[in-house]
Amino acid sequence: MTVLKALREVLPGESFLYLGDTARLPYGTKSPRTITRYLQQNVSFLKSVGVKAVVVACNTASTVLKEAHLNGLPVYGVIEPGARAALAGTHAGVIGVLATRATVHSGAYEQALLAIRSDVHVVQQACPLLVPLVEEGWAHDPVTETVLHRYLTAPLEAHVDTLILGCTHYPVLKDVVQKMAGPTIRVIDSAHALAYEVAADIEAGRIPANGDGGGIQVFTTDISPSFQQLGSHILAPHAIDSWELADIRGD
Amino acid sequence: MTVLKALREVLPGESFLYLGDTARLPYGTKSPRTITRYLQQNVSFLKSVGVKAVVVACNTASTVLKEAHLNGLPVYGVIEPGARAALAGTHAGVIGVLATRATVHSGAYEQALLAIRSDVHVVQQACPLLVPLVEEGWAHDPVTETVLHRYLTAPLEAHVDTLILGCTHYPVLKDVVQKMAGPTIRVIDSAHALAYEVAADIEAGRIPANGDGGGIQVFTTDISPSFQQLGSHILAPHAIDSWELADIRGD
Repeated sequence: MTVLKALREVLPGESFLYLGDTARLPYGTKSPRTITRYLQQNVSFLKSVGVKAVVVACNTASTVLKEAHLNGLPVYGVIEPGARAALAGTHAGVIGVLATRATVHSGAYEQALLAIRSDVHVVQQACPLLVPLVEEGWAHDPVTETVLHRYLTAPLEAHVDTLILGCTHYPVLKDVVQKMAGPTIRVIDSAHALAYEVAADIEAGRIPANGDGGGIQVFTTDISPSFQQLGSHILAPHAIDSWELADIRGD
Repeated sequence: MTVLKALREVLPGESFLYLGDTARLPYGTKSPRTITRYLQQNVSFLKSVGVKAVVVACNTASTVLKEAHLNGLPVYGVIEPGARAALAGTHAGVIGVLATRATVHSGAYEQALLAIRSDVHVVQQACPLLVPLVEEGWAHDPVTETVLHRYLTAPLEAHVDTLILGCTHYPVLKDVVQKMAGPTIRVIDSAHALAYEVAADIEAGRIPANGDGGGIQVFTTDISPSFQQLGSHILAPHAIDSWELADIRGD
């Protein structure tokens, strides 16, 4: 939803179809083999309902994304845009990555950063409690500050000057991370970087432009009132036009 | 794994086949419809490998369990044994239930308690952060104490004299919960209550006894090194004889 919000802001004329695979969340604890299978099923579903491009708005799922096309559709992950935005501003060349255990384990950000600039030093930190803290609605809470303080210790001791929020839940925590990291550290979320890259591809004609007014339809793979509540809250002031159940088998 | 450990201790002569549905965990955020489908698939798998009885070692999955048999196998949930153990010792008749959001939402403990004794007062508390805290290995940590302090406020203000640990992750936190609740409150975990009920059914001949020495085979639906590590840690000093991948479709 944080990625959808960025896309909505950058591309006000486009329509969005959001698929939340709530029946099989979280992806952060699953193996690459399983995540790849889920990703292919999800893209097939999106193709069947007629989208023109797919954004994989999840860092863990983005780590298994090896191609720029899936099922004949252009497909975007969040890793490379985040890496490019981090490199664009680092002076020290020391970049921290906060992410789920699976994203850290994949080394995807480190690889993406080093592929562009081989002399940067990357400090990865797995933060498995941040997603449940956001989902509990405790983003602005002393408990979250205590947990963040612990997660930030290693990156700050390594003197990072840039911190990548390597999970699409974390933009909700951006101001808290910024406060705890201090004003000299740049905090990067991939969502806006990605949205500008999609906008550039539409501008260049690599994806046809819509300009049809811009609705938001949401599909989920399970009924989830708490997801509906949190999703609407994150997306506000932008409204969701419809919520439907997507029957993605097989599970 | 906390339930398997209790069963292993109470039934040293039996063999156990443990199925961890790690590809689709956690169940605590999923709908009853989805959980029921997963449960049926899992029991089919266990029947195909030849078990004589099934223990549903998950409170959330136990909440959708309406029958004493599934696919022709005797099947045990953890809710009723926990409720009976809680009622056996309460003086005040005020019982607290700590559980996942899904278990609290189902009202399963409240229904089970009131079905046996209609004058008890039940205080349910959803504790969504406890599972990730246990899985992070922070069971004995100031952060967990702070979170528990918050979750225990409502039950303690209602003057419970018994607290049910209504999630199979929580026995790892039993001593911390006991310390924070104080010595006058009984803390119940369903695992041992359930194990004694299974033992009684074997004793009574309702399930044939094995006496074949008692191995432990573990199947998981996804490769998960962190689950393997945590599982072995919880089960110690009991050893696991084999780890295998179970191909449960369709997902």
